[in-house]
Amino acid sequence: MADTAEYDCDVLLGADFLIASAPPEAGISGHHVVEDAALAVSGGRITAAGRRSDLEGLRAKRRLELGRSLVMPGLVNAHTHIAMTFLRGWADDLPLAEWLTRHIFVKERRLTAEIVELGALIGCAELIRTGCTAFADMYLFEDAVAAAVDRAGLRCLLGEAIFAFATPASASAEEAADRVRGQAERFRGHGRLRVAVMPHSVYTTDAAILRSSLRLSEELGLPLHLHVAETAREAEDCRRAHGKGPVAYCRDLGLLRPTTTLIHCVVPDDEELDMIAESGARVAHNPRSNLKLGSGVAPVPAMLRRGILPGLGTDGAASNNALNMFAEMNACALLHKGHNLDPTLCPAAAVLDMATAGSAAALCRPELGRIFPGGPADLVALDLRSPNLLPLYSPFSHIVYAAGGFEVRLSMVDGRVLYEDGAFTTLDLPQLCNEAEKLKQWVLKTA
Amino acid sequence: MADTAEYDCDVLLGADFLIASAPPEAGISGHHVVEDAALAVSGGRITAAGRRSDLEGLRAKRRLELGRSLVMPGLVNAHTHIAMTFLRGWADDLPLAEWLTRHIFVKERRLTAEIVELGALIGCAELIRTGCTAFADMYLFEDAVAAAVDRAGLRCLLGEAIFAFATPASASAEEAADRVRGQAERFRGHGRLRVAVMPHSVYTTDAAILRSSLRLSEELGLPLHLHVAETAREAEDCRRAHGKGPVAYCRDLGLLRPTTTLIHCVVPDDEELDMIAESGARVAHNPRSNLKLGSGVAPVPAMLRRGILPGLGTDGAASNNALNMFAEMNACALLHKGHNLDPTLCPAAAVLDMATAGSAAALCRPELGRIFPGGPADLVALDLRSPNLLPLYSPFSHIVYAAGGFEVRLSMVDGRVLYEDGAFTTLDLPQLCNEAEKLKQWVLKTA
Repeated sequence: MADTAEYDCDVLLGADFLIASAPPEAGISGHHVVEDAALAVSGGRITAAGRRSDLEGLRAKRRLELGRSLVMPGLVNAHTHIAMTFLRGWADDLPLAEWLTRHIFVKERRLTAEIVELGALIGCAELIRTGCTAFADMYLFEDAVAAAVDRAGLRCLLGEAIFAFATPASASAEEAADRVRGQAERFRGHGRLRVAVMPHSVYTTDAAILRSSLRLSEELGLPLHLHVAETAREAEDCRRAHGKGPVAYCRDLGLLRPTTTLIHCVVPDDEELDMIAESGARVAHNPRSNLKLGSGVAPVPAMLRRGILPGLGTDGAASNNALNMFAEMNACALLHKGHNLDPTLCPAAAVLDMATAGSAAALCRPELGRIFPGGPADLVALDLRSPNLLPLYSPFSHIVYAAGGFEVRLSMVDGRVLYEDGAFTTLDLPQLCNEAEKLKQWVLKTA
Repeated sequence: MADTAEYDCDVLLGADFLIASAPPEAGISGHHVVEDAALAVSGGRITAAGRRSDLEGLRAKRRLELGRSLVMPGLVNAHTHIAMTFLRGWADDLPLAEWLTRHIFVKERRLTAEIVELGALIGCAELIRTGCTAFADMYLFEDAVAAAVDRAGLRCLLGEAIFAFATPASASAEEAADRVRGQAERFRGHGRLRVAVMPHSVYTTDAAILRSSLRLSEELGLPLHLHVAETAREAEDCRRAHGKGPVAYCRDLGLLRPTTTLIHCVVPDDEELDMIAESGARVAHNPRSNLKLGSGVAPVPAMLRRGILPGLGTDGAASNNALNMFAEMNACALLHKGHNLDPTLCPAAAVLDMATAGSAAALCRPELGRIFPGGPADLVALDLRSPNLLPLYSPFSHIVYAAGGFEVRLSMVDGRVLYEDGAFTTLDLPQLCNEAEKLKQWVLKTA
């Protein structure tokens, strides 16, 4: 084996098409198509991106010529409960209250770190398989999520959920906040794992918890995520209790800041949208989950008109039931056109921006979701020989409207290949299949 | 090689899960889950379906043990323009009139049978890959579609589109009708190809053409399909011209019969829905296309309440842009819940019914979309080891909410394997990739 010093890069990727991007300081995503492209990766970073002919002289430890493929930024999932794969398809098509209380909460009440870790591993496998390289997670036992994500090799913004009541993970909101402190300490300096403060929502916490969450996020310099304005019922309840809608309530508590992400925002009113725009707070849009739970359709065109670029998220597998960012982009692009009777809304490039730059901003990691020299080597390659991608006029169009996610033939995070042509490199899929059976037995047995 | 007489069946399929069905005379689809299942196929028909242990004694020419797979009826696409893959992603996100006149019609005006055949081949590859085994097609040069479908091995209800004006295929409506007569003659007795009468729509034909189409369908005993009530604009125009909505107009012409399929039906009023229900006419619901073109959301829950089980279709690749029935089921199941703020609408089993029995009825082939002894061996198998299908509680839920279509590992039509674990048996995918480039060059050069 030759000495590392003899090489110009670790990996030299070649592909017929590349979506390259502007660096984060440009503000816009600046995604653009490069044909006959090549990309050099070293030490977890993209060191060069351009035409094949310009890079072919580079000496690479590994040459990976993908031919009829499209290399693009890894997608970023702005909101999920990754471990909830253990409840995927356990209960569907039910009224929201019945679904939550009789089918979801009864299981979650008995939750263990082991269930969370296994559920998260399965979720990570799905993310890797379908082109997602980074995500924001909110759940209980986030240390177990961290263990799964670390093993899978993905990036994650970990959010131990903070509630006003006891959970299997924490006896109180204070204890949950202590977990967050511990995690922030433990993962300080970790390249792929970062920590956020995630009070669950307005209606499952109280003003004191929201204020202390804000202080904690300021003290430790962490992002803050919370569910806000998911349903009309929630907004009504908030107006009755506090005399204002949930976004306005958050604003008055000082929560609306550029490092805060409001998850869902299905039912903000116009004034609340203005508050979000003025504050620079982020939104995580979860179109499929909002549809499946009958919550409705978030006013995304109105957000875009105000300069709010939402991130895109899948929510958990209990309410989607996929963790597939291609399916999510597709739903987003189609839904708002039909709902608003306007086929020009949410064009393909804007939706790709949401699933890359928009979500990356929600993770407070603007360098993600972009392919640019100096940026992290988080990327995926789509197989353009898939019949549903023939012929090819516009890569943006195919990514958003035609692809299903399973055309992903390569997934790389931090310069490390996590999936390549059917094989996972960090996860043992046959073992996960067997272990999924354990999840099922646990769910069936847990009253 | 032993003598055929020594075998009990051609193929004996084993799988951990099977969706078996009631025979068509039962009326309902009767889909139900069989665990540890096996299925015998001979001469293009299912000869037995049941538990592995009950069928394991059968002597089979080929044993195909699929293990962790779900065998289910091949999905039926109630409406597409299969050849339109040549315009996939050519133009998106545009106002409807501009899209149609400046980007679609200008290409279609120069259409040739060669372009149609190649476009259809690519479309067939996508259908096979994503679990569809039969479809209804409306386009020009349906003989070229027939050639492609026959080569691919799929089933198709062929519909040469009839317009009031000249097309590249026919100088007049009469000539188009003559084509239909010729096709009906040519494909008489063909097991996989059947012919329908498909006047394009109310607004692109006239009363005389619709009446003569009805007579032709009665004379030859053929189904009749036409686009109806796709947009509010179409309905308004119809009311202005004829004093009634497009469904009522069709009813008054005598078109609403059990062998007629109304494509789209996005904007029927309540009285028109009653007319459809009373007549026994079928509906082809195309949720993704209706969203993408900004047409709106069809009143599917109101249809189901009236006992109308719509078929499910993808429409063409120019307005979807996928031909993926799993994505279509998913969109259907999610959309109506969110649009109507009711998570109990369109439950998984009902949506699977739509994509099987509902679509089969639209094709006037009630034996399709079902797995029952004596029925046609049209089936697909999903790989349950795909991480997005872990764990498994309900096969119906996974089919509709979690699957993306690319988990299909086996596709069989008429007892013949068309796709198995990455390989097409009837189509040459590398060649199709090369030929897709020809389509692109033709589109780019055609003013």
